[in-house]
Order: sequence, then C-alpha cells, then structure tokens
Amino acid sequence: MRLLRFGDPGKEKPGILENDQILDVSSYGKDFGEQFFDDDGLNKFRQWVEQNKSNLKVVDKNTRFGAPFTRPSKIICVGLNYTKHALESKMPLPTEPIIFFKSTTALTGPNDDLIIPRGSVKTDWEVELAFVIGKKASYVEENDALSYIAGFCLHNDYSERAFQLERNGQWVKGKSADTFAPMGPYLVTIDELPDYDKLHMWSKVNGKMMQDNNTDDMIFGVPKLLSYISQFMTLLPGDVISTGTPAGVGMGFNPPIYLKPGDVVELGIEKLGTQRQVAKGYQE
Amino acid sequence: MRLLRFGDPGKEKPGILENDQILDVSSYGKDFGEQFFDDDGLNKFRQWVEQNKSNLKVVDKNTRFGAPFTRPSKIICVGLNYTKHALESKMPLPTEPIIFFKSTTALTGPNDDLIIPRGSVKTDWEVELAFVIGKKASYVEENDALSYIAGFCLHNDYSERAFQLERNGQWVKGKSADTFAPMGPYLVTIDELPDYDKLHMWSKVNGKMMQDNNTDDMIFGVPKLLSYISQFMTLLPGDVISTGTPAGVGMGFNPPIYLKPGDVVELGIEKLGTQRQVAKGYQE
Repeated sequence: MRLLRFGDPGKEKPGILENDQILDVSSYGKDFGEQFFDDDGLNKFRQWVEQNKSNLKVVDKNTRFGAPFTRPSKIICVGLNYTKHALESKMPLPTEPIIFFKSTTALTGPNDDLIIPRGSVKTDWEVELAFVIGKKASYVEENDALSYIAGFCLHNDYSERAFQLERNGQWVKGKSADTFAPMGPYLVTIDELPDYDKLHMWSKVNGKMMQDNNTDDMIFGVPKLLSYISQFMTLLPGDVISTGTPAGVGMGFNPPIYLKPGDVVELGIEKLGTQRQVAKGYQE
Repeated sequence: MRLLRFGDPGKEKPGILENDQILDVSSYGKDFGEQFFDDDGLNKFRQWVEQNKSNLKVVDKNTRFGAPFTRPSKIICVGLNYTKHALESKMPLPTEPIIFFKSTTALTGPNDDLIIPRGSVKTDWEVELAFVIGKKASYVEENDALSYIAGFCLHNDYSERAFQLERNGQWVKGKSADTFAPMGPYLVTIDELPDYDKLHMWSKVNGKMMQDNNTDDMIFGVPKLLSYISQFMTLLPGDVISTGTPAGVGMGFNPPIYLKPGDVVELGIEKLGTQRQVAKGYQE
C-alpha cells in the first residue's frame, strides 16, 4: 500500500494511492500516526480497505499533500552514513552510527515551500530514505529489525550548516527549523519494497543534478540502524528514522553552494516518488 | 497552582496540590498537555478550579505520582550551563547555549525506579530546573520570554556517559533510555515562582550530598534560553526545556562514581519538591 495525507496544512485527511488514484480513507476513523500503526494496525487497515474499496471517494490528484503520517513522537536522523558524504563533510568515517534528533515541528508536506530561517546563510539540502516504525521497539536484534518497520518514504533533511556546526555543539540546532523536514509524497509499506536497499536517489537544485546515488551505498544498513538505535531508546509506532544522505550537498562544493530565495529543490527516490520545494526568505 | 498527575503508569489522572491536599481535576476534561496549555489554557483552568473547588475529590497522598504533564512534543536539554560543571566535565565554557534532545519515551514519575540500561557502566545523575512552554513560541525576544512559560518543575536528567561521549557523536544517545527523565512531583505555575532564578538545588546518592548549588549560578538564564532556542525551532505548548546541571555529577569525581543496582538517588529544588529513585539493573 501507499499511504498519504491530503488537504490543507493542519487539516490533512488520510488517503491511499491505488492504481494511480487517490482514495479518501478518512472513514476508517484513524489518521496515520502512533495509534494507527500500533497493535498490527497496518494489517487491520489493509483488511478494511479490501472490504470498503468500492465505496471510497476518489480525490482530485491536484490536491496538496501533507507529510504521509501525523506528528511522530520523534524524528531520528543518521549522520554521515554514506562514505563520500562523510568525506565531503571533512569528518571521519563513523565506526558506529551517528544519530541526532530533528524537531517534529520541522515536518511539512513534500511540495510545500522551504522557509529559509531568519539569519540563515547556509541552508542546505539532503535527500534521504526514511523509514517509519510499525510497533514499539526496544533492544531489537538486527535479524529481527525489519519486522518493526511499517514502511519507507522520501525525506529532505534540510540543514542549516552554520547553526549545525558553528554555533557551539549538537547538530539539532541546524536541523529543526520549520519546513526543514518535507516527507512524502507517500509511505510505501515494507511488503511492497523488498528492495529498499537498492533504490536510486537524487536531488537537483534549479534543475542541476546535485546528488545522484543509491541506497545500496549506505555504510550502516536499515536493519543495523533500527537495532542500534533501539539499544539507546524506545522507538514508538509512527516514529521516523532517516538514514543519512549521499555526497552532493551544498556544503561539499568548493566554494559551497547554499540556498537562496527563489531556488527550486527537487528530489526523489525510486519507487518513493518525488518532492519539489521552492525556497522562500523568512518573513515576520 | 501546583499541577500534578497521579495513578498507575500510563493511567495517570490530572490533579492539583492545594493546602497540602491533592485534588482530582480529571472532571475538567483535559489532561496537562499541549491541548491543555494552548489558547490561554492555564487561566481557563484556574477559573474552572475556582468555580469547582468544593466539588473536587481529595486523593490519597500515598498515591504514585507520574510526570506532571503528558508526553510533550519534545524535551530539550541545555548542556554545560553551570561553570563548575563544565569544568568537571573537562569541556570549554560555552559561548552560547548548547542544546540537545532527550527522547520523550524517557519520561517517568519522580519516584519511579531508575532502570540502568543494558550494557551501561556509566549511569549518572543531574538535578535540573525544567520549565514548560505555555504557548507556541518562535523567534521570541528575551524580554518577552517569561510570558511563554507555563511553569517550572524538578528534573533528573539521567545520563549514560559512555553512550553520551564515547559512542561516536551527539549526546542524545546517552540521554534517552527509558526512565532517564523523572519529572515532578509537580509543576509550579510561573506566577507562583517569581524567584525561579534563586532556588536552592541539590542531589544525594545513598544519603551523601553530591550536588549542592543554586539556580542563580546558571551561565545562561531562563529567558535567554527560551529566546535562544526559539531562534532554531518552534516550541509548542507543553514542550519541556531543562536548564542544565551544576557540579557534583558522578563523572566529575576522581575516580568517577556511577550508579549501580540498589543505589538510592534523591534530589530536590526549593519550592519544587523532591524526588527519590532506586536504581535497578536492566531485566529482559
């Protein structure tokens, strides 16, 4: 299944994409969040869809998309998880995963404007494969990890490099501005994406290819990341883990390239759709 | 007002402490979380209490306390915000606030057991003054900051020093285990705590005084912290900011002192009550 949410910001309804049609599933009664995923929720929903498909309303495809899930308890990001990106960042290759949080208030729809934060001069893009937790996870073994995943989606892990790296410690400062976490357009359930670790991924700025890589190039793979993070904290249904970005971010160019109002950022991951954001300056 | 939550874990009800009595306010219809604080919620609640006080049920004082608020969208902690603690941590004094996140799954009641995480050998205590956001905050001026605060509470910012400092980057790894964020026993609203910046604070391990200081010793004060953090992310009603710990943590001793099963940790801040945790080993 491909889960999505459509409608105006803050008023999104849940939907699914089936045979190139968007179907409104708000009559199911639960939006795509912690309560939905918990307790084998995806399977229950799948059965409900089978029984009710013929009655579901078709939604105009030109609707706005929101993030494909409601606000999670946390967004956890993985740093320096592609070799060439670690090199372009002038940082050592990690010997175990680097993790940091992103404020969940950064969450936004896949095609919403990027708001460059006040005082920012180093706003940068990062195409990433994100996955969503399907059931509560604590001290999970690596060979059991995939059973804890609901699905995958596309994420642009926007980063303000001065806030992240030049403002006295801990990356969260540069990762958490409003609109810094466009997710979607849809969440593909894991049963339909057995090849999540072999997907082409890319990003463009103003039409120029910047990142062009494949999820098979990760240093630490998805099962390892889930297992590893679950040793340090409990993951809840609906939590999001973003698995790091490949080389080609603005910081890696010489001289660096950072976003300015009017820039257009496009990105995609094979089978997970595409995003497009227009950068805007911050306005009071 | 002093807000608290009482009852079994996961089934807490909201209450208030008035004249040394706990009153059940669950009939108000909202628990102490984002929806409660939003839209001038504290004032509405105060009026409701005035009108309904005579009908509120008195609760047995031996009840368990939960954290005095429901799960927030984020717990943001401030690092190295007391001079001597920065020195004992062998880190430079910050020139601007250091911030990091703590997983909200770490939240627990003020007297619940501390569970030492699996594989931990460096679990440490940190008495801290925490404050709770009362209304949505973004780009707040320092001289306006106090109007965004609902109240204050006591927090033990438990930290696993090996996870935090020896596991390849970003402190969140050492701050986020289950039971690592005991909060409470109650939240004192800011109108009753004008002297939040002059409060005695302390912690003891097995009866021995470890931390003995005052909130007047912070490097960056509460208004500065709120204003500063709101430049990097939007704060939501109910969000928690913990303001850092003074010297006297286990890591600062020579040799260091870390917690083991059976240890008893007690802590308090003047006017904000006390906490007591018994350390337990992790069990499958």
